[in-house]
Amino acid sequence: MLGRLYANQDCAAAFALELVGERWSLLILRDAMFRGYTRFSQFQKKLGIATNILAKRLETFVAAGLMERRQGGTPGEPAEYVLTQKGLELKPVIIALTQWGDKWVEPGPVLFANRTDGQPVTVQLREADGDAEVAVADVVARRRQSRPKIRR
Amino acid sequence: MLGRLYANQDCAAAFALELVGERWSLLILRDAMFRGYTRFSQFQKKLGIATNILAKRLETFVAAGLMERRQGGTPGEPAEYVLTQKGLELKPVIIALTQWGDKWVEPGPVLFANRTDGQPVTVQLREADGDAEVAVADVVARRRQSRPKIRR
Repeated sequence: MLGRLYANQDCAAAFALELVGERWSLLILRDAMFRGYTRFSQFQKKLGIATNILAKRLETFVAAGLMERRQGGTPGEPAEYVLTQKGLELKPVIIALTQWGDKWVEPGPVLFANRTDGQPVTVQLREADGDAEVAVADVVARRRQSRPKIRR
Repeated sequence: MLGRLYANQDCAAAFALELVGERWSLLILRDAMFRGYTRFSQFQKKLGIATNILAKRLETFVAAGLMERRQGGTPGEPAEYVLTQKGLELKPVIIALTQWGDKWVEPGPVLFANRTDGQPVTVQLREADGDAEVAVADVVARRRQSRPKIRR
């Protein structure tokens, strides 16, 4: 976890990056989301990262509630790391990064689809009522009228 | 730039993270996108990061085509770092992170809106035809049928 690295940044994107902004974090989550990986050895083999780093990342995800650690059913069976709803809801971040990389760096090997009907799925900027897609140039940030006062 | 850190990852999200996955990178882009910052001193003051790190990040963004460096018009006027379309199109990544942080960590101070009509804007997972919003649990990755063969 980046911990308080972004402590002076009162911004929900910064809050998110404190949990998933370290190297490899988003790629581990990607493999959990889209490859269905749950075991240490699966992540390690796919990513080829140092085991101590992978262990630290998984520990962080469990502590942050992005994953649940489930002990293997029989002795010697490895534990499984299973995405929670909180973790699963990072999918739009991964998909947005992928779309951007596909367009601006180099097309990658995957597309996203709705498993219920097989139709392609993309991340889109939309008005809340859902009628119109919004051009990136037109999206601006506004200060929220009110929010709970929480001291970080 | 992370450079070849993710070199064994044939994945467009990894390609994207090689350009924007380092600490502070996405927050610098956020300030360029939504605060309209263009000058070194603006980013430095807002983020409070070491000047050598900020300089490296801006240099990387210029080299990667996310920003253009424009020399000040008069002698002594500081250079400006202006987002290109490539940089601007990372907005959905920032907004997706913000939405997630708002929901799962703590509500931040901003909302996003369409400047043309003031309506709230969100990142949504949508079928390509745009009719239906798709639940995160239903989005799966499929191997692309064909793509240009590029050796990285």
